[in-house]
Amino acid sequence: MSLNFSYYMPTRILFGPGKLADLATTEHLPGKKALIVIGASGSMQKLGYLGRVVDYLRQNGVEAVVYDRILPNPVAEHVEEGAALARRNQCDFVLGLGGGSTIDSAKSIAVMAVNPGLYWDYVHGGSGGGKTPPHRALPIVAITTTAGTGTEADPWTVITKSDTQEKIGWGSKDTFPALSIVDPELMLSVPPRTTAYTGMDAFFHSVEAYLATVRQPASDHLALEAIGLIARYLPAAVRDGNDLEARTQLAWANTEAGICESLSSCISHHSMEHAVSAFHPEVAHGAGLTMLSVAYFTYLAERCLPERFVAMAEAMGESTAALPEAVKPFAFITALQKLIDASGLADEKLSGYGVRREELPALAENSFHTMGGLYQVTPVPLSLAEVTQIYENAYR
Amino acid sequence: MSLNFSYYMPTRILFGPGKLADLATTEHLPGKKALIVIGASGSMQKLGYLGRVVDYLRQNGVEAVVYDRILPNPVAEHVEEGAALARRNQCDFVLGLGGGSTIDSAKSIAVMAVNPGLYWDYVHGGSGGGKTPPHRALPIVAITTTAGTGTEADPWTVITKSDTQEKIGWGSKDTFPALSIVDPELMLSVPPRTTAYTGMDAFFHSVEAYLATVRQPASDHLALEAIGLIARYLPAAVRDGNDLEARTQLAWANTEAGICESLSSCISHHSMEHAVSAFHPEVAHGAGLTMLSVAYFTYLAERCLPERFVAMAEAMGESTAALPEAVKPFAFITALQKLIDASGLADEKLSGYGVRREELPALAENSFHTMGGLYQVTPVPLSLAEVTQIYENAYR
Repeated sequence: MSLNFSYYMPTRILFGPGKLADLATTEHLPGKKALIVIGASGSMQKLGYLGRVVDYLRQNGVEAVVYDRILPNPVAEHVEEGAALARRNQCDFVLGLGGGSTIDSAKSIAVMAVNPGLYWDYVHGGSGGGKTPPHRALPIVAITTTAGTGTEADPWTVITKSDTQEKIGWGSKDTFPALSIVDPELMLSVPPRTTAYTGMDAFFHSVEAYLATVRQPASDHLALEAIGLIARYLPAAVRDGNDLEARTQLAWANTEAGICESLSSCISHHSMEHAVSAFHPEVAHGAGLTMLSVAYFTYLAERCLPERFVAMAEAMGESTAALPEAVKPFAFITALQKLIDASGLADEKLSGYGVRREELPALAENSFHTMGGLYQVTPVPLSLAEVTQIYENAYR
Repeated sequence: MSLNFSYYMPTRILFGPGKLADLATTEHLPGKKALIVIGASGSMQKLGYLGRVVDYLRQNGVEAVVYDRILPNPVAEHVEEGAALARRNQCDFVLGLGGGSTIDSAKSIAVMAVNPGLYWDYVHGGSGGGKTPPHRALPIVAITTTAGTGTEADPWTVITKSDTQEKIGWGSKDTFPALSIVDPELMLSVPPRTTAYTGMDAFFHSVEAYLATVRQPASDHLALEAIGLIARYLPAAVRDGNDLEARTQLAWANTEAGICESLSSCISHHSMEHAVSAFHPEVAHGAGLTMLSVAYFTYLAERCLPERFVAMAEAMGESTAALPEAVKPFAFITALQKLIDASGLADEKLSGYGVRREELPALAENSFHTMGGLYQVTPVPLSLAEVTQIYENAYR
């Protein structure tokens, strides 16, 4: 026993089907003029979500300006462009509407709207300047339309610097959203493949938070519940996107996985994926994680925390009681493979995205260079050679 | 399934043995001049805790003024006196050091230091004025030396108006502590009886939050863990106050029960106790709860949520598998009685504190008058006659 931790997750979360309408009446909006940040695909307009948000804000006495250029792997130039728009319009808060890329961009725009220089000046890791922003970010509101990154309940924002192929997570106490609305009805429209990718992302947030050396009791409870919920409901939501119960349970699993990102941490599985999608931006984050996962977690299960791997397997519905002690932890790998198959992701492979075996050492190096911090909270030490070996094991 | 809730608990909690020393270095102190609020008993001085806190604050560049008159059942006059002292000294935050009474007083002082009128003008319920404070409270820091009320992780403050015998809980988004330090080493000195009373208070916070109609997944996890930890470790801490493992587990159980008070709610068991200790201030809150608990929860277990009573019993180590279905929920009552006995509280009875059978209807009335709101989140409707009956059932 050695309970020693810091607990902090100050975001107010309004959760439930239909909750988006609360935007019209909530007393918790942090300002009177919003910069709404959305993706470049046009889907927020087509689905009518943007119109509803603008209307609800108006009913609540809030004006809005829209910035609509965010890419699936969001880039630093757009952070700076959005921030300039917020400044020009004297916005007093930033509202991200969409998936993780949009909400992360909203967070970073909120920082740059009130701070000098370039976004990369403040990023820690890689070629980031590591500076502390002199001013507190504008308040952030997050409205998530996917059950993916958990960004609505954590301070993290992942932005890519295109010219140097660095994809780095960063955050501070000022980049927690002040208010997040999680309305599973908004997620009914997510297509099957994206549902699978985002669901696997949330799944790995939970798994990694449950294994990280900085785990704590509250993150353990939430992580184990999320692992179980995703194993149970992700295949259903992939099969039938209109299954509101599955969408609701996945939305909560994703949000609680986000809380886990605040109370505990991701581990180096995420560092390794960021290298893949920084070099190959067409790889969705959840796809990258999935392609690395069996090799990565097998390597870990051979080396540490057997009882935690068993607990995760049990939470996913595997019965381990009859297995020999040494085999039990690997029931998690069995369950993971079943989840990947049932979510329709069995065909995902690195070579399918043009990743070449020869570049694996460079990916390993990049993972240390840009997100090396997560190796320090990984439950076993991993050398550059070992990480390269895990990439090799995952390669097909 | 119907997940629909609001999640909000913005306090930063530093938890662990030895954490008090972090006060000297933390970057999270919310000001430069503190009003330190402590109890009138002199124990914070005798134990050296006050001296350590003043020293650590000084090392962190913070001056301090001390207000030392808080009673075990804290009263509104002292809130106003402390607030006047804070104003006179231009304190920019309020630090409560001690048990629930002190920290609650610190919260209320933080409100009154910057708001006009009397404290009772802002209280909701009873003869309270129900006004909204025009100004945000000063930031609050909580350093808890008992594992009792969970006030370090919730917005609630319970203050008594002596002349009208009203003991009312109140709170707002501004009365969450900005920072709480939970250091189990500070709890080693709590005497056995107080350990038992405060432990039972934390226990009932968990039980009530698990039963309240406003429960949510995160409070369910934390509540069930706290119920199990208290059943396991409270008797040990009562037996041997120097058992640091037991103290640490109870400190976390108490803090997570406090988080449950923020995410879910107490129910009318607490309203009924407040009436008892408002009429009989010598009844410790935890003693009052304990004396009512078997009658109260038996009444509930006969009427609602059988599966939740079973889950609580199982968390407390009772095996219910072999019991007939109808009997299973009452395994919780068995476990509760065992916990009361093992914590040395079997001899507590209302008549022992001078409570007379004739005043029970007046207590029932007071419980609706002052804390009627908690009846609305109790999982079964309770009439005045039924509440009187529960008091009767508890009386001996």
